[in-house]
Amino acid sequence: MQMILMTPGPTNVPERVLEKMKNTQCHHRTKEFGKIFGELNEGLKYVFQTKNPVLTFPAAGTGGLEAAIVNLFSPGDRVLAVSIGVFGDRFIEIGRTFGLQIDVLEVPRGRGVTVEEIQGALRDEHIALILTHNETSTGAVNPIKEIGEFMKDKSQIYIVDAVSSLGGSEIRMDNWHIDVLITASQKALMSPPGLTFIGVSDKAWEQVEKAKLPRFYWDFKKARRDMEKATPQNPYTPAVALIGAANEAIKMMQEEGLEAVFERHKKLAAYFRKEVEKLGLPLYTDENYLSDTITAIATVKGEEIKKIMETQYGIVIAGGQDQLKGTMIRVGHMGYVDQDMIDRTLTALKGAIEEVC
Amino acid sequence: MQMILMTPGPTNVPERVLEKMKNTQCHHRTKEFGKIFGELNEGLKYVFQTKNPVLTFPAAGTGGLEAAIVNLFSPGDRVLAVSIGVFGDRFIEIGRTFGLQIDVLEVPRGRGVTVEEIQGALRDEHIALILTHNETSTGAVNPIKEIGEFMKDKSQIYIVDAVSSLGGSEIRMDNWHIDVLITASQKALMSPPGLTFIGVSDKAWEQVEKAKLPRFYWDFKKARRDMEKATPQNPYTPAVALIGAANEAIKMMQEEGLEAVFERHKKLAAYFRKEVEKLGLPLYTDENYLSDTITAIATVKGEEIKKIMETQYGIVIAGGQDQLKGTMIRVGHMGYVDQDMIDRTLTALKGAIEEVC
Repeated sequence: MQMILMTPGPTNVPERVLEKMKNTQCHHRTKEFGKIFGELNEGLKYVFQTKNPVLTFPAAGTGGLEAAIVNLFSPGDRVLAVSIGVFGDRFIEIGRTFGLQIDVLEVPRGRGVTVEEIQGALRDEHIALILTHNETSTGAVNPIKEIGEFMKDKSQIYIVDAVSSLGGSEIRMDNWHIDVLITASQKALMSPPGLTFIGVSDKAWEQVEKAKLPRFYWDFKKARRDMEKATPQNPYTPAVALIGAANEAIKMMQEEGLEAVFERHKKLAAYFRKEVEKLGLPLYTDENYLSDTITAIATVKGEEIKKIMETQYGIVIAGGQDQLKGTMIRVGHMGYVDQDMIDRTLTALKGAIEEVC
Repeated sequence: MQMILMTPGPTNVPERVLEKMKNTQCHHRTKEFGKIFGELNEGLKYVFQTKNPVLTFPAAGTGGLEAAIVNLFSPGDRVLAVSIGVFGDRFIEIGRTFGLQIDVLEVPRGRGVTVEEIQGALRDEHIALILTHNETSTGAVNPIKEIGEFMKDKSQIYIVDAVSSLGGSEIRMDNWHIDVLITASQKALMSPPGLTFIGVSDKAWEQVEKAKLPRFYWDFKKARRDMEKATPQNPYTPAVALIGAANEAIKMMQEEGLEAVFERHKKLAAYFRKEVEKLGLPLYTDENYLSDTITAIATVKGEEIKKIMETQYGIVIAGGQDQLKGTMIRVGHMGYVDQDMIDRTLTALKGAIEEVC
């Protein structure tokens, strides 16, 4: 049975992207690679909606979060971080591991933070605000556009983890005043996992100069220096095949047009939620903070539903994560997703519910 | 023109491995992935010749070197490191970046270190010996077997970077008393780049417990914990397609048999060197320290030769690296390499020399 990945990542990869991955086998110091990597760098600026360089590292998205921490901070730096779930907590844990003093704005699971809450918590001694855009563990989003409007004239660096939303939900790095924006290849960017991408604003580059945490593999300055060479390259051997794949996937997004991509995600998400509610299933997430890329459905029968959908229908979804295990199922609808995949998912979900309830 | 990669990595990837990479698209928390990852973990033990767990991270080989440093040391720890070229220097630079005190045993470029030199330099206050097995920048090898014999009863941790040799040259982690052994997917393991693999002995695990450098993404203990679960997995999203590829490549090595793989590399390397010398080209490397996986040829016309071989014959080789640029060409003969590829390379080399000399 051909499985359809309706998880919050890795997501389905188009055949065209898989074929390009297979056929991108070149040496990383050649003009041939430089052309592909140069195209990817331009394509990333488009999907990030930024004029800033977007750095690429061979790593999981968590590596991208670590890279942001070690390039932007010194031990003892004080920052404000928002937690609305597992991934917000992870970003905080990484920061603390490297000696940051983190004041945490805890928001109840299932909703996002408000601008007023940020306003109440952000203080002059904070040198950055860190938050997750799309909290993969709860299906809730933080209003990063409105927060960006508030952060616009502030001294703090505005850092956003958009691993499970960038390329699916609307995000405009420059217009929304985001200084550091992190994502990964295997979610809405419809490529296989193994690459993390990080956009860095001029304001953030100034902060990189001041930051004293040791860094070698994750060094932003070396990555930028090498990608801006006449033949764009990487300080260390890049994941060549994955770069070929990501470049092809972003070409597909350019062909569709980013506005159309956002619209497709928005429509499919709204349709999916409406149908889920028709099945009598409650959403886990507060209706004011719903994600365009993932839906969390509250149920204690998650593990059974997940198993039936996978084994009988070939639809792979996710359960609750860490402390949220057993409280929900999570369905990803991002990247290479269309109406038919959503319909198949609904059929499988309906079948599974009838069997377990 | 179909290019043949005779560089010191990335190397040619067999079609069977490329096809498996393309077809390995599953979610990383499923039994399907667990089976593949579990097989890879066993296969890695075979190619490392160890009973120890071999950890996998999505990263370049340089990430593997950084992972070893941050998991094994505390700031201020004193170690002895050997440099015989660019990669030895890089390992030292990483160590210093993270606050290690490193005493460097400098060996002239083109040869390896001797056991006597190690004996003369290693002191009680050193808690580790760090060296590169196969120095990709000079084509010289360090005698890691003999050094291992010497290190056997020492208190120091014996750390070997075998990025450009493991799976090609003979290496036996356990029998040779190596405590930490690092490699990457894109060299003799004939897979696309993007994965680093690290073998860790019991003695090194004890040292991990003492080491205080902060680590999150590279955390050895979390990686081991998750790979030893009933369904083997990774702390963060692994590079699923690359893991499928590496698993397939190692299966091919198991089918050929590791002894036969070593023998093939040894024979092809000896044949290639003999033919190079017949062309009147001097080797860059001291004859007592020749590599089975890479040959460095001394020439000031390297850039021209490289260009002709690539554009007219479709054979991609490498020039000198960093300070060694313009002094040599480097030909990799590792991984998925056979007599025919060596012969084509020699034909191209001959043609290029006739044109430039």
